[in-house]
Amino acid sequence: MHEKYMELAIDEALKGKGKNFTNPLVGAVIVNDNQVIARGGHLAYGEPHAEKNAIHSCKTPEKLFNSTIYVTLEPCNHYGKQPPCTQAILQSGIKRVVIGQLDPNPLVAGKGKQFLEDHGIEVITGILEKKVQKLNGHYNFYYEHQRPFITLKQAISLDGKIALAGQRTALTGAEASEKVHEERGDYQAILIGSNTALIDNPSLGTTKSTAFPPYRIILDRKGETLSHKELTIFHDGSSPVLIFTENMQKADVPKHVEVICEKALTIPVVVSELFSRTIQSVYVEGGAKIHDAFLASGYWDELITYLTPKIIGGDGTASFTSSRRTEQVTAIKTIAIETFGEDLRITGRRG
Amino acid sequence: MHEKYMELAIDEALKGKGKNFTNPLVGAVIVNDNQVIARGGHLAYGEPHAEKNAIHSCKTPEKLFNSTIYVTLEPCNHYGKQPPCTQAILQSGIKRVVIGQLDPNPLVAGKGKQFLEDHGIEVITGILEKKVQKLNGHYNFYYEHQRPFITLKQAISLDGKIALAGQRTALTGAEASEKVHEERGDYQAILIGSNTALIDNPSLGTTKSTAFPPYRIILDRKGETLSHKELTIFHDGSSPVLIFTENMQKADVPKHVEVICEKALTIPVVVSELFSRTIQSVYVEGGAKIHDAFLASGYWDELITYLTPKIIGGDGTASFTSSRRTEQVTAIKTIAIETFGEDLRITGRRG
Repeated sequence: MHEKYMELAIDEALKGKGKNFTNPLVGAVIVNDNQVIARGGHLAYGEPHAEKNAIHSCKTPEKLFNSTIYVTLEPCNHYGKQPPCTQAILQSGIKRVVIGQLDPNPLVAGKGKQFLEDHGIEVITGILEKKVQKLNGHYNFYYEHQRPFITLKQAISLDGKIALAGQRTALTGAEASEKVHEERGDYQAILIGSNTALIDNPSLGTTKSTAFPPYRIILDRKGETLSHKELTIFHDGSSPVLIFTENMQKADVPKHVEVICEKALTIPVVVSELFSRTIQSVYVEGGAKIHDAFLASGYWDELITYLTPKIIGGDGTASFTSSRRTEQVTAIKTIAIETFGEDLRITGRRG
Repeated sequence: MHEKYMELAIDEALKGKGKNFTNPLVGAVIVNDNQVIARGGHLAYGEPHAEKNAIHSCKTPEKLFNSTIYVTLEPCNHYGKQPPCTQAILQSGIKRVVIGQLDPNPLVAGKGKQFLEDHGIEVITGILEKKVQKLNGHYNFYYEHQRPFITLKQAISLDGKIALAGQRTALTGAEASEKVHEERGDYQAILIGSNTALIDNPSLGTTKSTAFPPYRIILDRKGETLSHKELTIFHDGSSPVLIFTENMQKADVPKHVEVICEKALTIPVVVSELFSRTIQSVYVEGGAKIHDAFLASGYWDELITYLTPKIIGGDGTASFTSSRRTEQVTAIKTIAIETFGEDLRITGRRG
């Protein structure tokens, strides 16, 4: 019975997809006497939460008394952009709260549940927990691990090359390229190195409909991109650009570009900075040295490989390469193999 | 009707598999009054051909008169290890010969058909031609292209590495390794470079039951393997070993090993030498420079990639790599993608 209503709450949550970054997707339904009397989702960042949307949209408010609310995520108990949902629940007369998962955000993290119980409301937790957690994989990961979820994405030939030496090289076919442009929208940031920025001059945009197109992050130790203002990232203001560099300089950049100077530009420093900016997920598109630096740092979670039926050989640029001495082979657990046109898309997690 | 009997002839041909290198697989059935009265295959190198085996095994020889013989390959018309089959057909009283494919071997190449027709025998050709050609893909290729069929086989990680730098590295799982050991038996020669010989010290054997285990060929410009007599290839005499080198030296090698000195050791020179030795197929197992040399030479036909869900990065040895300037991406036509344990096996031809 609980599962059935939680499924309906999940449906409500999904209505906010792409609209409420960096908040999680949350849905709620209110049930009285085995009848759904209200539904609500968290539909946009800064707007009311799912619980309140459900309560306020109820057309038979007299039935709220003694009713049960099903909510995918623990109700908040703090003043953020909105007053706490726990208050709204208390005032509505709802007598029971069924929760999918507790909120890993330390601002909530059990406090919502505690407050409700302290005020005589029955709380049940863990209904469809795994399914509910998947609504907000990156959000959960971010708070549990205190850093963004990091996906390394590469497109390689059958001999593991990412390009002809020093040249922008279109490897994958149209279907795979479309998939890449779309899946960028699942992340809060796209990250590349300065070489890739200078050689490929990508826009790093997404075709996914989202109110929050991903940040574009450039790791540029020497600050070389800053003297190439013709690059697309400087002209295309569709989302913020962060340039990490060690080269402290008075850079004259457009408003959407921020230059972040670090004494020593390492992956842990970058990851820590992104965490402090509440960036919950990063899609790292290379090149070879950037990928290898993430691999070596241990700060990565998923590897997406687009494999194209081509071969380059010779002095082509090899994937995941640096002068670093490698002593060990890292196992990958394959999760999915899909076909896009002639290309394969192989998804793996750390094995 | 013709197709039905040609299928039976193919069944006979397959009985010689692994037993009659470097001769082709050939099968024959003899039909009189819609009854199969005899069958025969070419079952071992140096032994009678399919046509003669069929004629001689016929238990009702009186029915040979005015009968039809179905034979997968054009009957030979020259004196080799055996007198010509065309003679035997003529003498038997057979009045019609139905042929799957003409023989590309210039010793035959239409002459068998011509002889039969000149002697009043009806000849029909091209029945199930494509299927029949597949019986002897390497044999046909060898004569049509005047060189062996060359397969480049690699085993790579998800970042296109073949090994940790300078170390023998087991990348693929047991199932893929078994497949490699088995498919070596489909080729007449296995070829590697001296680096691979020295680092991996492989036996290059096959688990396939064959009377003709593949030649083992080492490309060794500097002749380095010759001062490493502890290598398995020098102790394991299960098949001949050919060492190509530019380093002319009086090498004291076991009987099964032959050292071939060339002034300039290039891929065309090696391929030409293998052609003159009637080696019809070569399975090139690397390493990276050898593969790249074959790629650059244009002397290759198939690429088999074993892709294992691992990652190496850093200074791992990259597949198909050399200092050669690569200006072009080579397209591959994917033929098959199979799974062996956790590994993928991707077969492609030149696109």
